[in-house]
Amino acid sequence: MTIIRTPSPDVYCPVTPAIVAELSAIVGAKNVIYADPERMADYAHDETAGVYETYLPEVVVKPATAEEISQITRLANRERIPVTPRGAGSGLSGGATPVYGGILLSVERMNRILELDLENLVAVVEPGVVTNELSEAVQAHGLFYAGYPMSVELCFIGGNVAENAGGGRAVKYGVTGRYVLGLEVVLPTGEIVQFGGKRLKDVTGYDLVHLMVGSEGTLGIFTKIILRLLPSPLASAVLLAPFAAAQTAIAAVPQVIQRGHLIPSAVEFMDYASMELAYDFLGEKLPHPKARALLLVEVDGYSPAEVEAQRNTLADLLLEAGALDIYVGDTPATEKKMWRPRQKIGEAFSALGVEQLDEDMVVPLAQIPPLLPVLEQLARSYRMKAFCFGHVADGNMHLHTMAEPGLTAEAWNAAKAAFLTDLYRRVVGLGGTISGEHGIGFKRVPYLALALDPAVIALHRRIKHAFDPLNILNPGKVFPAE
Amino acid sequence: MTIIRTPSPDVYCPVTPAIVAELSAIVGAKNVIYADPERMADYAHDETAGVYETYLPEVVVKPATAEEISQITRLANRERIPVTPRGAGSGLSGGATPVYGGILLSVERMNRILELDLENLVAVVEPGVVTNELSEAVQAHGLFYAGYPMSVELCFIGGNVAENAGGGRAVKYGVTGRYVLGLEVVLPTGEIVQFGGKRLKDVTGYDLVHLMVGSEGTLGIFTKIILRLLPSPLASAVLLAPFAAAQTAIAAVPQVIQRGHLIPSAVEFMDYASMELAYDFLGEKLPHPKARALLLVEVDGYSPAEVEAQRNTLADLLLEAGALDIYVGDTPATEKKMWRPRQKIGEAFSALGVEQLDEDMVVPLAQIPPLLPVLEQLARSYRMKAFCFGHVADGNMHLHTMAEPGLTAEAWNAAKAAFLTDLYRRVVGLGGTISGEHGIGFKRVPYLALALDPAVIALHRRIKHAFDPLNILNPGKVFPAE
Repeated sequence: MTIIRTPSPDVYCPVTPAIVAELSAIVGAKNVIYADPERMADYAHDETAGVYETYLPEVVVKPATAEEISQITRLANRERIPVTPRGAGSGLSGGATPVYGGILLSVERMNRILELDLENLVAVVEPGVVTNELSEAVQAHGLFYAGYPMSVELCFIGGNVAENAGGGRAVKYGVTGRYVLGLEVVLPTGEIVQFGGKRLKDVTGYDLVHLMVGSEGTLGIFTKIILRLLPSPLASAVLLAPFAAAQTAIAAVPQVIQRGHLIPSAVEFMDYASMELAYDFLGEKLPHPKARALLLVEVDGYSPAEVEAQRNTLADLLLEAGALDIYVGDTPATEKKMWRPRQKIGEAFSALGVEQLDEDMVVPLAQIPPLLPVLEQLARSYRMKAFCFGHVADGNMHLHTMAEPGLTAEAWNAAKAAFLTDLYRRVVGLGGTISGEHGIGFKRVPYLALALDPAVIALHRRIKHAFDPLNILNPGKVFPAE
Repeated sequence: MTIIRTPSPDVYCPVTPAIVAELSAIVGAKNVIYADPERMADYAHDETAGVYETYLPEVVVKPATAEEISQITRLANRERIPVTPRGAGSGLSGGATPVYGGILLSVERMNRILELDLENLVAVVEPGVVTNELSEAVQAHGLFYAGYPMSVELCFIGGNVAENAGGGRAVKYGVTGRYVLGLEVVLPTGEIVQFGGKRLKDVTGYDLVHLMVGSEGTLGIFTKIILRLLPSPLASAVLLAPFAAAQTAIAAVPQVIQRGHLIPSAVEFMDYASMELAYDFLGEKLPHPKARALLLVEVDGYSPAEVEAQRNTLADLLLEAGALDIYVGDTPATEKKMWRPRQKIGEAFSALGVEQLDEDMVVPLAQIPPLLPVLEQLARSYRMKAFCFGHVADGNMHLHTMAEPGLTAEAWNAAKAAFLTDLYRRVVGLGGTISGEHGIGFKRVPYLALALDPAVIALHRRIKHAFDPLNILNPGKVFPAE
């Protein structure tokens, strides 16, 4: 791993030992990492595939309270030092990477579920709570937290909110933002403020809750998150439908959605390359000998009869659309097993240790079938091996690419930018955009202008300036500097 | 009606005949109203109860395209003239009232459903489409637009988006914002920009779609709105539950939500005063001789069996909670009839022609039972007659008050500000806020600081400035001037 720091003496000032002493006084010396490149290396990257550049922070701090974070941001403004907030580091666009060095602010110690308010069907959590921990805690009360990113066992709620994480159940349940009712936020200038609350409706001023959601740590640091909970669905079922061809599987998706007259809780697609990799990673055999693609469809509801009716409708539609067979899982254990290959594909990619790119474009639902051959052809033309999979009923398709054998590292590196430019142009041409759930972060900054008008990018800069006049909070992310 | 104009020669310049000529060249002379106070009077107010001050615009323009609106805003910046955008004028907080005179920009001619995209389950509309027209157009295709403000037969989609309108079905379906996937917007500075698109997920930059939603016409003028449609529920039922006491009815609401383990599509409450007024307005008799309050509960779903199961669960819970009886409507005609008193209560109030106040506070669900006696006692202490009703499963309670006989107009006017201050303080004290769906508009500007921190109000001003540096778009709304 090459460790690079981008010092920007023109813009930002270095973290001196005196500043480290001040930070230690704020958060406690044992919650500061300084002059220890080995321990700091963990904070120098996230899980973005293909971002080889790793940016070491100058100092890592682990505050425990909003008040401490406020003091850190005030110090950073006074001294003009960049602050990069960080959750679990499971992001896929480099958003938590300290590209200008400075202070890395980890929320890992802020990991308490502060309140399960069963009367109001609300949870209040700190940003460092692992998403799955919240899910399990509320399940014990017959409740349901609908956020379901594939990294659910690792990622933090704070990161989910910062990225407006999507995941497997967005087609029915929406993305993270739908469940965020309120936030306590430390503004970049140090004020501790409340946006929203335990309220299902709120039009008292601008919707700053949802401006914060998805702002990728550039507009404020969340210190409390108020989430809406739902009653747990009482029944669910997963259908696994293997297909003999990827195009048949993908063409089934809009049909099932349009003709089914119901909204599944998930529709996941995997092409052959993705299936092969994921099943192999888990040491399992493919679900059908002729399978060259699969759809995983989940339904849920408040009665077994309702779920059975949905399941039957979907099974009929999938068979009509060319499924080779339908496997049904309707116990928690079988459902979990059927989800596993899809959930674990990210880990399977990481385990390969080869150079790769992970994209998550989104297009209008009906453009998903024409998108697939575009992706396949494009990867081929750049001599990349393509893996297509994703939350296709949202129009959200993941494309993972790797260098084909024989492509040199130099050729791969040279091809990347041209490939991404080409890819994003085509996706935008289909009415889509360059990221559905992973974010712009650092990785996609050079490409933002392919998706957004200059006037809209200029507006982003003015909004950022309204929050963070000295640009100390997570600089270098989301949009390019002027 | 007293017609008042607030000229602000210090801040804004007057609309001269030369400017009117320029506006006429942009939109066509027949789409301009000038020097005609009688025709302009319709544009000088909205439906806010108790806002007696009526502000006459200097000129009314009715553009037909984004390009025309862009030219108008550029002219307004050049000449420093305020522009107040206006939908149907059915707002309840004075948001479309031209408090600084200037240009009233009506979107009434932009009333086309541009596209019903059945493949993508999306509608593209202009801002002047009446909400009910969209609902009916999509129903014909087995689809469902979930927005359901009580003024659905009058209000425009553009106004729904500007106010983030709530309404009857928000507890299950969320408010208007959930369905807004994309917007074409003319910025206050004249640029025509696109936010979002026909996409269910999008994390490409800040969520400017939802910053625009609920911004009450202060950050931009919508010219196209992309809305998500759902498959129509195939079955529904309405339960009308009369109760012998308001407190029994209201106490049932959190119980039904917490114990029912399902989410009704609507839960509406009416106290005795509201019932009496609404049923009387419609020439109908009350549903039960002993009824002193009622709950209207709606459920829907994709199968009759599912809806029947929900209906039975709810009926049992309502009877357990003290309902005198349960009346069930499960045909479109009976359902419509059962909704009517609730839908028409606004018109019933307007028909009275007496001075009144209409409030729509929101509190956490579990605070709805303690809120009711607070509202009743507070109204009494100010010698006002109280009508309590609303979307109580959202925690959104409407309080309508009128002067009791014997209270003079002077005493009423003197009491209003003190009453609202007292009311809002108590609501905020319960973890609530001052408006759940009507907005701050002009009416609640003096009270915003009761709900939001000074740092949050300052942030509103900086965001507004980022969009509208000369403050020409809908000035005087949402937050107080510095």
